[in-house]
Amino acid sequence: MRRELEELEKIIDEAQGNTGASLVIKNVSIFHLTTGEMSRGDIAVCGDRIAGVGETYGGEREIDGSGLTAVPGFIDAHVHVESSMITPFEFERCVLPRGVTTAVCDPHELSNVAGTKAIDFFLDSARRMCMDLRVQISSCVPATPLETAGAELSAADVCRYAAEPLSSGLAELMNVPGVLSKVPEVLEKAAAFKGRIDGHCPMLVGKALNAYLAAGVRNCHECSTLEEAQEKLRKGMQILIREGSVARNLDTLLPLITVGNAPFLGFCTDDRNPLDIAATGHLDYMIAHAIESGADPLAVYRIASYSTAQHFGLRDRGLIAPGYKADIVLLSDWRKCRIAHVLKNGRIVDDALFASRGLPPDPSAFLNSIQLQKVTADCFKVFSKKAETPVIGIVELSLTTEHLELELPFDGREKKCAPELDVAKIAVLERYGKNGGIGLGFVKGFGMKSGAIASSVGHDSHNICVVGTSDEDMALAVNALIDSQGGFAVVNRGKVVDVMPLPLGGLLSDHDFETVEKELLRIHEAVKVTGCPLETPFLQLAFLPLPVIPFLRITDRGVVDVAGFDFIEV
Amino acid sequence: MRRELEELEKIIDEAQGNTGASLVIKNVSIFHLTTGEMSRGDIAVCGDRIAGVGETYGGEREIDGSGLTAVPGFIDAHVHVESSMITPFEFERCVLPRGVTTAVCDPHELSNVAGTKAIDFFLDSARRMCMDLRVQISSCVPATPLETAGAELSAADVCRYAAEPLSSGLAELMNVPGVLSKVPEVLEKAAAFKGRIDGHCPMLVGKALNAYLAAGVRNCHECSTLEEAQEKLRKGMQILIREGSVARNLDTLLPLITVGNAPFLGFCTDDRNPLDIAATGHLDYMIAHAIESGADPLAVYRIASYSTAQHFGLRDRGLIAPGYKADIVLLSDWRKCRIAHVLKNGRIVDDALFASRGLPPDPSAFLNSIQLQKVTADCFKVFSKKAETPVIGIVELSLTTEHLELELPFDGREKKCAPELDVAKIAVLERYGKNGGIGLGFVKGFGMKSGAIASSVGHDSHNICVVGTSDEDMALAVNALIDSQGGFAVVNRGKVVDVMPLPLGGLLSDHDFETVEKELLRIHEAVKVTGCPLETPFLQLAFLPLPVIPFLRITDRGVVDVAGFDFIEV
Repeated sequence: MRRELEELEKIIDEAQGNTGASLVIKNVSIFHLTTGEMSRGDIAVCGDRIAGVGETYGGEREIDGSGLTAVPGFIDAHVHVESSMITPFEFERCVLPRGVTTAVCDPHELSNVAGTKAIDFFLDSARRMCMDLRVQISSCVPATPLETAGAELSAADVCRYAAEPLSSGLAELMNVPGVLSKVPEVLEKAAAFKGRIDGHCPMLVGKALNAYLAAGVRNCHECSTLEEAQEKLRKGMQILIREGSVARNLDTLLPLITVGNAPFLGFCTDDRNPLDIAATGHLDYMIAHAIESGADPLAVYRIASYSTAQHFGLRDRGLIAPGYKADIVLLSDWRKCRIAHVLKNGRIVDDALFASRGLPPDPSAFLNSIQLQKVTADCFKVFSKKAETPVIGIVELSLTTEHLELELPFDGREKKCAPELDVAKIAVLERYGKNGGIGLGFVKGFGMKSGAIASSVGHDSHNICVVGTSDEDMALAVNALIDSQGGFAVVNRGKVVDVMPLPLGGLLSDHDFETVEKELLRIHEAVKVTGCPLETPFLQLAFLPLPVIPFLRITDRGVVDVAGFDFIEV
Repeated sequence: MRRELEELEKIIDEAQGNTGASLVIKNVSIFHLTTGEMSRGDIAVCGDRIAGVGETYGGEREIDGSGLTAVPGFIDAHVHVESSMITPFEFERCVLPRGVTTAVCDPHELSNVAGTKAIDFFLDSARRMCMDLRVQISSCVPATPLETAGAELSAADVCRYAAEPLSSGLAELMNVPGVLSKVPEVLEKAAAFKGRIDGHCPMLVGKALNAYLAAGVRNCHECSTLEEAQEKLRKGMQILIREGSVARNLDTLLPLITVGNAPFLGFCTDDRNPLDIAATGHLDYMIAHAIESGADPLAVYRIASYSTAQHFGLRDRGLIAPGYKADIVLLSDWRKCRIAHVLKNGRIVDDALFASRGLPPDPSAFLNSIQLQKVTADCFKVFSKKAETPVIGIVELSLTTEHLELELPFDGREKKCAPELDVAKIAVLERYGKNGGIGLGFVKGFGMKSGAIASSVGHDSHNICVVGTSDEDMALAVNALIDSQGGFAVVNRGKVVDVMPLPLGGLLSDHDFETVEKELLRIHEAVKVTGCPLETPFLQLAFLPLPVIPFLRITDRGVVDVAGFDFIEV
């Protein structure tokens, strides 16, 4: 209390100009997200708070704001940090300078590998970081009963985080069938996090959508059509517009971005890899692209900050206003979202800020997560009774897949892939030493002529997935990942071409962001030797085991028809 | 937990149409406050929640919604229930049928009389009522050191309510000078309710406004000009547009009401008497009047519900959407806000609902609050050294007063009122038996030719205030209130013409709403015998002791110059 009173005294003095402010941004153009006006003046910062705006102030330290525009720090409404393949400490080095002062993350990927240890690792990281990382509590580990994950989070495991102050609620409740059929474990979680439940319900409509919402779910980041988003909006759902590396909905949902809709919208990246962040940006890219495409800048900046703050009950941020958190982005070009400086909690974001952090939490518990025995080419043979085959059709830059039915080369007993039809073989191998299951199937769209690529990132159970045109190369690729304890591998004609290690849970690199970026560029280049022309082949592969997104998927237990929520014969 | 799970199972079933809903509003036009669309369909209600919207449902009980439009229940963002002169139980009988399903009240008036007993009485009432009465914790009792109140709430008294679940925060922090000069007691309260502080800062601008906001204040209902409101909006303040019985800002602030501003606006009544509620309405009147005056209906209905719900962190209400509270207003004419039915927590608001309530809390602690000895005409004599006099100029339908300087009849020793100049004498008498102080002054604008009127309602300390043209009549009027233990009195030429008793703390009637309405009409009629033409003479009188609103005021300690926040000689 004593410290709080002293802080209040200090900010009241500084706001009145009785004493100099800790930091003053002089003569800056302030974008008032309340009225939509831009006005020129000073912003006085006292500690981690804004003391005054729009008047003239002097301070110990001054930033020349002329030519710059101040907007509130951006908030990523839904992100899996693991998709950037870097640790939370590196994640903030990557996105905080891009204006993302708050991110609502779901440690769902690492939780599937390591359970509550993963949640605790993220919470512990969040406590030591500069940016505000809100850690939602992963609701669906494993995501479905159709797969084998490294860990299971029981309702009790999840509910013990219900009062966690660094969390804003339950992370995306993907188990829609579980809600609709009233599975007790699912409802226990929903009851514990009543009204603070993030959603995930692609293409859900009508009464089923009503029921899902009635269970207390409040948002969805999975809208891929305007009609879908509009029904959800009508029914009170917060629409989190996503621009990930694979799933990109910003262009489709652009017409939603109006000042009228702004209170009910958010921006999120969900799964965005370091290459995209480095090359095109993060929320800064979404903001610039939306404005360039004609969206109202007031709506855009509100959505990027205030609306999402309100949605998650973060009532201390989202405006450049006295008493609010001093999370401020200074733009040299507000239409293009060109960032000159970022302030987080009143501190200038630079190398010195990151250097001032303590040590990151120890990640060693996540090492040695691949408990799979070496495999041989025989493991990948597909025996069948007919040539007709359900084939997963990938759609570039979309999470959705097609459910194709194709005739594949068939000798009456064994079924093979058909590179000439762009059909490769795909396998998912249980990697936690639990049952050694291997799911086998076929996939169209990778454009591979030879070789194989393998990944220990495979949503959401993160078993090893491998796609290839040769069983031998597939085996070699998987074995390379066992040696590296996770990561990505490229094999061609009996030779390991490249391996990018991700030793932390098979998901995260222990390298810095810049190194990971280089490694990714190198391995993407390596993939080309197989003939695969995809921009993000490993991301595209990583989402194929995800049985909560339509239409056809594959897990360690087999090929899944998502509509029927069951396995089908290959 | 068991009951919560059963409720979840039930609502999921009813939302899917697996089982009939408890209640269905059939074929109603739903005003979607998210998208602004109107669509026709059913609303299924399960218990106190909305289960489904926009689909076809069947239920145990059905309401024909054809020709009706459904909007979310209204929220009064700031109200003193005491200003309706009825108990909380009667207040909801009065406003809930008008669509006000939630009200954020400040028991400031009764707290000034009886301290924490008053807060507890409101909280206890709220627990037993049908509507949601959110009880803010009165922050300034007494409002200023310039007056004598019946009770004092220390910082400790106030802070012990900081975690009260039926409260949304600290009630209007009127002591602006206390904030700016960092009075420790004031800052302790601000620290305990950080970010949940209601404001009250008429005409505050510039750095002083910044400092007040930096202390954690979040809204203001005292804006009387557009410019004032716009600066406050720019600085992140929620503007609660007020239409009370005296202070009426709706017309002035109408241009603010746009879809763009809607997230940052609310509607409130502050102080509204039963006559206005009966004759013209409550929030329903504000809504109809705003729409009739050209405001965007989407903005208006958002402001009346969703925006205010969000502002106070009431995340379960403000939309007609699955999972939200079934607080629904069914309108026969949505432009005119004509109400056909109201549902509160899924229950139809009717006499049966009110009859189903338990007993109200015992109010007997508030009886016998007038501890004043009988007075004589001599008590009201004003002795002075000069004819020049600061005179309070009242402005009809405004809380603000003018600071006039007039020459009054003066015999070298005693100063008298001047009915021919429309100047009457005014006195405020300390009524709690603490010091027997009497403040004396002069007031212009009551239009009295003879007699006196007296009131035990006198914001905010609620000492007895009396205005008249004859010292004898003033004494008689005060003595009549001592006999009735509070209320309003009209005296003319030595005769008590009428008394309306308000025996609970001298503020509230123990009669029902309808009776209070009749009594008020009768006493307003009675006032006319004095020549006073004011529509609401007692309300106008009741606000004259309020030393937090510019410019000239009077308390039991004397005439106050609000600008200087000190007494001046009469």
